[in-house]
Amino acid sequence: MKKPMTMTQKILAAHAGLDYVQPGQLITANLDLVLGNDVTTPVAVKAFNSMNVDKVFDKDKIAIVPDHFTPNKDIKSAEHCKFIREFACTKEITNYFEIGEMGIEHALIPEKGLVIPGDVVIGADSHTCTYGALGAFSTGVGSTDMAVGMATGKAWFKVPEAIKFVLKGKLSKWVSGKDVILHIIGMIGVDGALYKSMEFTGEGVSELSMDGRFTIANMAIEAGAKNGIFPVDEKTLEYINGRTDRKPTIFEADEDAEYSEVYEIDLGSIKPTVAFPHLPENTKTIDEVGEVKVDQVVIGSCTNGRMEDLRVAASILKGKKVKKGIRLIVFPGTQNIYLQCLEEGLAKIFVEAGGVFSTPTCGPCLGGHMGILAAGERAIATTNRNFVGRMGHPESEVYLASPAVAAASAIAGKIVSPEEGI
Amino acid sequence: MKKPMTMTQKILAAHAGLDYVQPGQLITANLDLVLGNDVTTPVAVKAFNSMNVDKVFDKDKIAIVPDHFTPNKDIKSAEHCKFIREFACTKEITNYFEIGEMGIEHALIPEKGLVIPGDVVIGADSHTCTYGALGAFSTGVGSTDMAVGMATGKAWFKVPEAIKFVLKGKLSKWVSGKDVILHIIGMIGVDGALYKSMEFTGEGVSELSMDGRFTIANMAIEAGAKNGIFPVDEKTLEYINGRTDRKPTIFEADEDAEYSEVYEIDLGSIKPTVAFPHLPENTKTIDEVGEVKVDQVVIGSCTNGRMEDLRVAASILKGKKVKKGIRLIVFPGTQNIYLQCLEEGLAKIFVEAGGVFSTPTCGPCLGGHMGILAAGERAIATTNRNFVGRMGHPESEVYLASPAVAAASAIAGKIVSPEEGI
Repeated sequence: MKKPMTMTQKILAAHAGLDYVQPGQLITANLDLVLGNDVTTPVAVKAFNSMNVDKVFDKDKIAIVPDHFTPNKDIKSAEHCKFIREFACTKEITNYFEIGEMGIEHALIPEKGLVIPGDVVIGADSHTCTYGALGAFSTGVGSTDMAVGMATGKAWFKVPEAIKFVLKGKLSKWVSGKDVILHIIGMIGVDGALYKSMEFTGEGVSELSMDGRFTIANMAIEAGAKNGIFPVDEKTLEYINGRTDRKPTIFEADEDAEYSEVYEIDLGSIKPTVAFPHLPENTKTIDEVGEVKVDQVVIGSCTNGRMEDLRVAASILKGKKVKKGIRLIVFPGTQNIYLQCLEEGLAKIFVEAGGVFSTPTCGPCLGGHMGILAAGERAIATTNRNFVGRMGHPESEVYLASPAVAAASAIAGKIVSPEEGI
Repeated sequence: MKKPMTMTQKILAAHAGLDYVQPGQLITANLDLVLGNDVTTPVAVKAFNSMNVDKVFDKDKIAIVPDHFTPNKDIKSAEHCKFIREFACTKEITNYFEIGEMGIEHALIPEKGLVIPGDVVIGADSHTCTYGALGAFSTGVGSTDMAVGMATGKAWFKVPEAIKFVLKGKLSKWVSGKDVILHIIGMIGVDGALYKSMEFTGEGVSELSMDGRFTIANMAIEAGAKNGIFPVDEKTLEYINGRTDRKPTIFEADEDAEYSEVYEIDLGSIKPTVAFPHLPENTKTIDEVGEVKVDQVVIGSCTNGRMEDLRVAASILKGKKVKKGIRLIVFPGTQNIYLQCLEEGLAKIFVEAGGVFSTPTCGPCLGGHMGILAAGERAIATTNRNFVGRMGHPESEVYLASPAVAAASAIAGKIVSPEEGI
């Protein structure tokens, strides 16, 4: 009798050439994509160069995206970018993206069609779990794993246990994927899914947009998960249509697959949610927030820099002005998203509202550049982490929220419900 | 008999309450504007605070523009901005500009109508000489002079000797103010106008656009000048119309004023000009450049980030692609210029060509952020200085040129004439 498996187990088994894998099992899997950025790739390249390997396993299956400190913040970042640019050139890496053609890696990679359902992807960046939205197994690794991946096209994994999140109902107005994942992290904690797979399922999935799913999968790591993953449906297939010639492999969890926990989430009951400093699990619903003034509002990042995010923010900011003294910084995820924002007039709305509309970069999210906080300053951000000092000075504070809440808060100068911003 | 004076002498005399001032004379003049940025204002504020003065001399006559390292590059810049923001708030400085409402100081100040003909302006930034384009006496000072200026509304000056540049004829296609000033600096050297006033005059002035005049006056300091200054004509008055309620005072040099040197410049004979590393005086005309490959192209800055500059760059880049591997970074001077670029479709042209279109910031010009060079890298830039390490690593190189030459070079991947880019 065939043993039941979760979606993640099935993908990993197929890529390990096995009929069945069980949680806790150590396997070696073939990789469909190995990803790195300007922070992690230099370390990976040094490790690669120490391996005495002539070439990469497949020049089409490696992606290098210098997105964290670009356009180059300083000499150090310029040197790092130069180093990986030369590597990409020498090894003829197909998917090396220069500024001008790039974006934030986790917005760019799906946009370019480099991940499809059923893939196994590793990336030397913790938010590589984003691509679970496409029904791929995708996880963050260290730079040395990236190096080995580039050399061999393989990586080892301990097959994760899984938690099942059964989504029901439909999101209310102004509630988005960001609120869903903040709600879940608030519920299970930042170690609630430690080294587990977060498998989202249920009729509610079809109600979620692809951009919403990307946001949810993106923050699986913030609950400690190995990966987050969504079933493949028509929206998924529509998303990848025209982006790639590769054919997706659709894996479905067996009905009797084993999960360490099962949660039912009524999407309709979720309210706009804000994570208070200094952990993503410190969530409050918008009605519980109280009076929290902010100095800076950041809308964008690999978590919330997609069209749906920027459209909802613009719908709130249109014809309004950010409160005097508030810095609003909007970061589109990619150059294509930037262009689409020009096309739809969103860039104009942001700038007319008194914000700045930046080039795509990870920028302030990780305290990189383009919006760093001083001591005592407070930001509301659509980013993914609000750890101590994440966006600047150790005595600054970051509140995580959706683009709708962030946009409304920019107008009010304090954290408010989107209802109050319109 | 009344002694003849140059334009600069007349403005300084009037602001010192004197009928006549002579070159070399030390005077104290009343100030119409005192300016600082995020690099120099923190130092000025500390000096101000040590003076035991309660308030600034005139809260409407001080402008503070945090433009160099904003949106905040790092914690240090965030702390500096916070410090000056608090000062501006406490002292109720009218013209403190937050990101979102600001721009590069020397593009912003004229745009906001804060300088008019006949003014005396000091700014704690060397390119404060830009406003000479409006027929004002305007010069860069140190932070302590800024502090004293904020406290007293006065500054001391040694009245400069003057050099007269008699402009004749008309610029050829693809030749702009940048080529004029590079040509002049190439001719007289980086100390050719040391502590002197560069007074531009002649029938050729009327052929120059206001944006072209701003560029020329902006780089007067690169010839060592105390200031650069243009006569006031219809274009000047048209420029300030609607930007301010103040009435300009028009000063004209006496015909028999004394100049240490007089140069005649035939605008029609000037070719696109490039300053080679590592001094602005190392100029070659475009036909003398030879094969110079570049890694990065920077279009913008206080020198060349105005509409005329961005329009000519876009006219060359429209429908073209920057050469693979070249980083093109375009920096509009202000948020209003940014909006105008959206309106005219220029932002779209830059991004579709494969460039990035940044928020207004001094950024890479001074090796600040947003486009720093690694060792061995080479940039062509419309900025104002190409000193060793100016844009990053001491072993990098900067070539100065006009927006037209820079745009054409982005397409070619090497320094070429605009004729070759179209």
